[in-house]
Amino acid sequence: MSSKKADKRPEARLPKGMRDIEASEIRAMERMLGTIRRVYESYGFEPLDTPAFEYTDALGKFLPDQDRPNEGVFSFQDEDEQWLSLRYDLTAPLARYVAQNYDGLPKPFRRYQTGPVWRNEKPGPGRFRQFTQFDADTVGTDNIAADAELCMLAADTLEALGIPRGSYVVKVNNRKILDGILETIGLDGSEYSGKRLAVLRAIDKFDRLGLPGVRALLGKGRKDNSGDFTPGAGLVDEQIDVVCVLLAGEARAFFNPSAKFSPPTDDPLLAKKKGGVMFPSPIADQTKAAALFANATFSEGLNELNQIRTLVEEAGYGPERIEIDQTVVRGLEYYTGPVLEAALTFQTNDEAGNPINFGSVGGGGRYDGLVSRFKGIKIPATGFSIGVSRLYAALSALGKLDTEAASGPVVILVMDRDRIGDYQKLADRIRKPTDGGEPIRAEIYLGTSGMKAQMKYADKRGAPCVVIQGGDELARGEVTIKDLIEGDRLSGEIADHQAWREGRPAQFSVKEGELVEAVRSVLARHVKASG
Amino acid sequence: MSSKKADKRPEARLPKGMRDIEASEIRAMERMLGTIRRVYESYGFEPLDTPAFEYTDALGKFLPDQDRPNEGVFSFQDEDEQWLSLRYDLTAPLARYVAQNYDGLPKPFRRYQTGPVWRNEKPGPGRFRQFTQFDADTVGTDNIAADAELCMLAADTLEALGIPRGSYVVKVNNRKILDGILETIGLDGSEYSGKRLAVLRAIDKFDRLGLPGVRALLGKGRKDNSGDFTPGAGLVDEQIDVVCVLLAGEARAFFNPSAKFSPPTDDPLLAKKKGGVMFPSPIADQTKAAALFANATFSEGLNELNQIRTLVEEAGYGPERIEIDQTVVRGLEYYTGPVLEAALTFQTNDEAGNPINFGSVGGGGRYDGLVSRFKGIKIPATGFSIGVSRLYAALSALGKLDTEAASGPVVILVMDRDRIGDYQKLADRIRKPTDGGEPIRAEIYLGTSGMKAQMKYADKRGAPCVVIQGGDELARGEVTIKDLIEGDRLSGEIADHQAWREGRPAQFSVKEGELVEAVRSVLARHVKASG
Repeated sequence: MSSKKADKRPEARLPKGMRDIEASEIRAMERMLGTIRRVYESYGFEPLDTPAFEYTDALGKFLPDQDRPNEGVFSFQDEDEQWLSLRYDLTAPLARYVAQNYDGLPKPFRRYQTGPVWRNEKPGPGRFRQFTQFDADTVGTDNIAADAELCMLAADTLEALGIPRGSYVVKVNNRKILDGILETIGLDGSEYSGKRLAVLRAIDKFDRLGLPGVRALLGKGRKDNSGDFTPGAGLVDEQIDVVCVLLAGEARAFFNPSAKFSPPTDDPLLAKKKGGVMFPSPIADQTKAAALFANATFSEGLNELNQIRTLVEEAGYGPERIEIDQTVVRGLEYYTGPVLEAALTFQTNDEAGNPINFGSVGGGGRYDGLVSRFKGIKIPATGFSIGVSRLYAALSALGKLDTEAASGPVVILVMDRDRIGDYQKLADRIRKPTDGGEPIRAEIYLGTSGMKAQMKYADKRGAPCVVIQGGDELARGEVTIKDLIEGDRLSGEIADHQAWREGRPAQFSVKEGELVEAVRSVLARHVKASG
Repeated sequence: MSSKKADKRPEARLPKGMRDIEASEIRAMERMLGTIRRVYESYGFEPLDTPAFEYTDALGKFLPDQDRPNEGVFSFQDEDEQWLSLRYDLTAPLARYVAQNYDGLPKPFRRYQTGPVWRNEKPGPGRFRQFTQFDADTVGTDNIAADAELCMLAADTLEALGIPRGSYVVKVNNRKILDGILETIGLDGSEYSGKRLAVLRAIDKFDRLGLPGVRALLGKGRKDNSGDFTPGAGLVDEQIDVVCVLLAGEARAFFNPSAKFSPPTDDPLLAKKKGGVMFPSPIADQTKAAALFANATFSEGLNELNQIRTLVEEAGYGPERIEIDQTVVRGLEYYTGPVLEAALTFQTNDEAGNPINFGSVGGGGRYDGLVSRFKGIKIPATGFSIGVSRLYAALSALGKLDTEAASGPVVILVMDRDRIGDYQKLADRIRKPTDGGEPIRAEIYLGTSGMKAQMKYADKRGAPCVVIQGGDELARGEVTIKDLIEGDRLSGEIADHQAWREGRPAQFSVKEGELVEAVRSVLARHVKASG
């Protein structure tokens, strides 16, 4: 490199909203992904990998924040001027894959996929522009049992990760209920698609903004604490009242099974399953209530929701695991039927002692139109996606991630630089025990500094012990092993000097042939001490 | 979605140079990556993850094909107009990471990283725009033992993946040898950096083009078979002769240890290690030879190469695993010292019977300037990178990938759609055996078709067996298990009807409580049959 360029050196910095992930998090994350994979596999889902970017038209535009610059995605042009975008989720690429390979696939097609996705959104604390999702989808069936199964899968996955029953809940709803409501207030038809989307996103913010905030967003708009104004959906008060049937205090018990009223509908399934279904609580305005139940979309949504409830209960999943919650809508535009959300219900404190609610760690739903975008024929589909980074943070706060203490390698010190080859041989012996025992991580010190720096290095690497072979040891055909963890412990217990000398010496020598045995005995101490 | 848009449906297609990866390849790939990870970990390397894209100025421009459109990388602009690029390797992001976090890192810093990289190059057969690398790097030491270790690591990794000794070789060279040659022909100095790069890339093509092709590229240029003309480095014949000392037939034995000449140098290390070092064969023109050996860069390169050879031999790695090859230069501009290449030496045939040479499956080298780009102080570093997709193809051809036959899930048929909840419970029992046995993959059929389609589905999914519980079975408290693999085998052995009835019936019924036992016994049959 030319030294002339020294005056315009680039700054070593991460792009905005990006992060590096270091060893202990990667290891814990790998174990977590392995657990999720095992559960998904146990349900019969098969892995699939698609590329990081797709043609922009194939991905479609379904992001909540599509009014932001670059419409929420990172895009660039191919040399033949076609637009490409980094995937913003794993569902849109799946739809492309299925449309492209439909004839050869088993039907239904079950696949899982994990990997990073990218969103060109405003970054914030815990909110990154690259994050990992872990999805399971069933494509090619309109069987509501597929949706019910995803609710069970979500519950099983969270429990397999160590989240106790009662500390999470899988909430399920149906978009058709909202669609039906919108129809009864005259918002059906393609001319209102923008308005419908605005309603959807207003309701999706209920957990964060509460009823007054949502009402404002359904109406003229809302000014937040920072003074920023978000324009509203422009509904009139009478329309807002009907939409808020989903949200209002008394209406949150809308589908509460303990409210035993007769439904104003003669749907055969509702009639048949009287014992197990949900009934609406009375709406103050009986005319409006009648209008809702007369709406076919609304009734279908209610019916499907009841089917899911029956299916999961029959499979043994009660409301302590999977519950109906009509405030769940999910922010993505493409859902057409059942929607679900996996939420953590426990509270914990951050380092500063402030309470944290983790809330949603995954969600999904039915998207019967996404594959049809390409094919023109209906290919129904439903899926569930885990927000891996968010779930990782929650598990970390719960103390459910096992982050082993001493994962560092054994470090062979370099006492004589002319004998590096011999030291590599010692390391090699520890790495590949010839007696068939477990391999042990080992490295030689590769810097060029002296003893003190080498010991400091071994410490920083979390080495369980160092191996030393200076001239004296070599002459005796021996190696010295210094137990760093035991050494640490003992140096904190000065009073116990005698035990040090008698019991487990922090430093001892063995014949070279007994090196692996000796290293093993040191590792065994640590397992015992920490276990 | 509005049906009005049906006439402008997007086409479901992969971006140019991209591919989807399906279940069996993903599973085999995961196992392969796991093996590489274990070897890298055993040497003490620690995992690191960096984001998919970086600021373009932080990545730098070191790709071989930088004259292509978009300079070989995919780039786009942030909302604040800063340029971002998808990473084209894992080394440039590492340099950024180290420069940003230097003070807190152990020194030397050993890290491994695996993940996709992207290149905006012309795709071709087996040549994709997204592919996976698996890198190990040691940063912060100029100790040549670090380079030697990477050669050993490369050899160990290939053997751990099942490539027998003798079917691969790790070739090592030193850029300083070429740099020294270029100095003796007057091509040092920053005004010749373009010319030096052209020479580098010409030599890098030696394996493919042979000596005449390289000579043409060193001189005026070369027309390939398709008639395309590549402009040359513009060297004159006398310069070309000196450069080709590295490549000419007799000079390929340049560093051959069996040629026992005294080196025209008084380097103390060379002198000391007389037994083990490499000596040059005589160059026809003694004046030119003397000029080369008088060059400090050339001698340093030779010296370092000898050190590596000594180090690996002392550690027990002979030339059947690690050999000196002075034609290896690696195409990337940023290497400054030792360079290495892991190559497969066996030949195999493709499906059409044509011979395939896999050649290079990985490479790397020392890049002492890459971190200094940011810091202004020297932070030496060296690394090795496996081309995972290429190695996968080679292992696949060698039959070294274990692709288990029957990995499909047990399929529970849906005989009565009112009892789906019960069927889920059966599946659940198989997935999570309460007796502590291994979980078994199981799913219920989620389509809406009849028996025949369900059996076809189970077949396509590679199910080992299906579980059936119709009205009759239910009345008897039983389930029927149909062994699909045994069934297949038996239907091919019509003569053996008696054995079918007596021995291992392809279909049998058990009490519901014995379901898991029975499924296990069927799986055990298959393991035995294929084992």
